[in-house]
Amino acid sequence: MVQIIESQYKEILAQYIREQSEQNLYAGQILSRQFLQENVQPEEVISMHKAALAGLHGELPDEVWHSFDLLIEMMISYGMANRERQSLVQKQE
Amino acid sequence: MVQIIESQYKEILAQYIREQSEQNLYAGQILSRQFLQENVQPEEVISMHKAALAGLHGELPDEVWHSFDLLIEMMISYGMANRERQSLVQKQE
Repeated sequence: MVQIIESQYKEILAQYIREQSEQNLYAGQILSRQFLQENVQPEEVISMHKAALAGLHGELPDEVWHSFDLLIEMMISYGMANRERQSLVQKQE
Repeated sequence: MVQIIESQYKEILAQYIREQSEQNLYAGQILSRQFLQENVQPEEVISMHKAALAGLHGELPDEVWHSFDLLIEMMISYGMANRERQSLVQKQE
């Protein structure tokens, strides 16, 4: 499942970089809801984004890739907070 | 407050791009917890990251900036899910 999602994301990213259309953004929005349903954590979205961008534009300078590594670290706290809240919500149900 | 946080983030990003040290990552981790406490949403973290990177390396190619715009869109769903869960948790308290 995750591999299908990754290749879908890469396709949407490629299209968005090419066209920057509202339709591409909407496709991203739909996919992000699927990510949430599949419990894909925010730090995993950033990793997937980094990998997809590397697959499409591997020639980009090092600072781009380093910058994503810091962003992944930032999002780990968000992922943790998500999981904590989710377990509280599940207890409530 | 947000402006202080933004300039702190830019400083950490600059250092991380330069050094890629564990210490820089740790500084990012601490700041991300502060972001959470301040209710900074994940899509706002990506916007801040994009702005900080643009301030440091404005010469990067267009595909980098477009790619961040898609990532911001992806994170909006995560921000919404966060807020929903948070309001459920608050009701529970």
